[in-house]
Amino acid sequence: MARYDIAIIGSGPAGLEAAITAKIRNKDIILFGSKDFSNKLQKAHLIKNYLGFPSISGKDLGEAYQRHLDDMGIEITEDKINAIYAMGDYFALQAAENMYEATTVILATGVMAGKLYPGEEELLGRGVSYCATCDAALYPGKTAAIIGTSPREEAEADFLAEVASKVFYFPTYKDQVNCSDNVEVIREKPKSIKSGENKRILKTTEGEYEVDGIFILRESVSPGQLVPGLETDKNHVVVNRKMETSIPGCFACGDIVGEPYQYIKSAGEGNVAALSAVSYLAELSRKKKVDDGSEQ
Amino acid sequence: MARYDIAIIGSGPAGLEAAITAKIRNKDIILFGSKDFSNKLQKAHLIKNYLGFPSISGKDLGEAYQRHLDDMGIEITEDKINAIYAMGDYFALQAAENMYEATTVILATGVMAGKLYPGEEELLGRGVSYCATCDAALYPGKTAAIIGTSPREEAEADFLAEVASKVFYFPTYKDQVNCSDNVEVIREKPKSIKSGENKRILKTTEGEYEVDGIFILRESVSPGQLVPGLETDKNHVVVNRKMETSIPGCFACGDIVGEPYQYIKSAGEGNVAALSAVSYLAELSRKKKVDDGSEQ
Repeated sequence: MARYDIAIIGSGPAGLEAAITAKIRNKDIILFGSKDFSNKLQKAHLIKNYLGFPSISGKDLGEAYQRHLDDMGIEITEDKINAIYAMGDYFALQAAENMYEATTVILATGVMAGKLYPGEEELLGRGVSYCATCDAALYPGKTAAIIGTSPREEAEADFLAEVASKVFYFPTYKDQVNCSDNVEVIREKPKSIKSGENKRILKTTEGEYEVDGIFILRESVSPGQLVPGLETDKNHVVVNRKMETSIPGCFACGDIVGEPYQYIKSAGEGNVAALSAVSYLAELSRKKKVDDGSEQ
Repeated sequence: MARYDIAIIGSGPAGLEAAITAKIRNKDIILFGSKDFSNKLQKAHLIKNYLGFPSISGKDLGEAYQRHLDDMGIEITEDKINAIYAMGDYFALQAAENMYEATTVILATGVMAGKLYPGEEELLGRGVSYCATCDAALYPGKTAAIIGTSPREEAEADFLAEVASKVFYFPTYKDQVNCSDNVEVIREKPKSIKSGENKRILKTTEGEYEVDGIFILRESVSPGQLVPGLETDKNHVVVNRKMETSIPGCFACGDIVGEPYQYIKSAGEGNVAALSAVSYLAELSRKKKVDDGSEQ
């Protein structure tokens, strides 16, 4: 399997700036995210404090970003990373249908928007999960409910439906759902989650669904869920001024590391994270040479 | 004397972004620096990693910055701040001929470029100084040598010459010098500084000048000299992730707080520093109301 120097997760200003900086330093990178960058950016009416762009709309700033990516030959891989495992000298990144490997990882996924459902936190890991692909192996012959916050989650519902006996899909968005036939789409608003006898119950505005597992698929998952073992502070990743996390080789930048939630702050941190990853790679390569005896 | 909410020292990307962010938050600000922003920016050939501007020259980026300042109605005050004193609930800022007051201060002066002269560090505070205005009171009837690295330093030479019996001015730049008649301009390259009997000796490529004091006036002074009492690490200011320094109400951002020396990183930090200053002001105002009994 190809192993990238740096895998960047997230296509807001932090992830984009990290990708550009790493590419300039000739690193072999992969940038995961959405081709329209981020929901937040697309919806931003007027941004007034991004130095160099007086009063720019999120849409126009996005276009400037796209020109920058095009200029550098950087493409966005639209594969959602559900879990990242530190394997020692590299990271394994799990997407719905693919696995990726990278020597370093930069987390730039933003902060989880919206509130948790009542019961969600208590039952997390006990019938409630954020990653259908990760847990699919546990679902042969079982039933599941999936709450999907964007059309991008439909692939996970399809994937789970190949294994599970029944999958109910609750879209929280208005777009048409294009899931496979064995996924039952239910247009009811999820309200809360509770525990039944050996089952989990999803309450909606109109009824209750008793299933073996409930999956809540949001655009951003909590960082501790995304990277097991990562030191977090509530829903933020703990970093130092070099954007180093508690896991060597794993860096983070942008909204995920804390307030203020500002574009230019995120971009600046993306730059720092990338340069720290570059230094880390250089140090790793130096050590490897010494170990190999090639520099004796 | 007018007391500003926030005084920002430095007109590189960190200072400019801090000014824009503070202005958006309706703070009464004063921004000190140069109308051509920074030497470093003017000389930058091609900047490739400032997200949103693919491959832009320093000159063009400077023009984008100017449009942003114009759009916000922000002006740059071209007065060089030589020393900043923490007075308890405000800061006093000393320039060549003016004093300013501000409730908070954001340091964004960049890093001191160039090497120290041999002998400079050893004799600092013992006949060698970075601020002619600060020490002028000690020079009636005495002699001084001033090394000036830009035409902006000429005002300090003039000021000192009003008090001292003799001022020699050594410009390290090529522009014409427009000092007053009682300043003797000497076009020789300073080499080193040493201590004589009760005097200090400036050695140049062509001779030696024995004086009571030697002043070295660079575009950036070391942060510990600029703000007495500030915690520093070599020539950087120590800050946390909120850009708070060791002195309450004093924030710092950009190259002055450490590497990497990158425009977008500096701009991002300027944003954070300004928002932290805004929070600090809000907290101060809340406390004041409580103390005044107006919120009981």
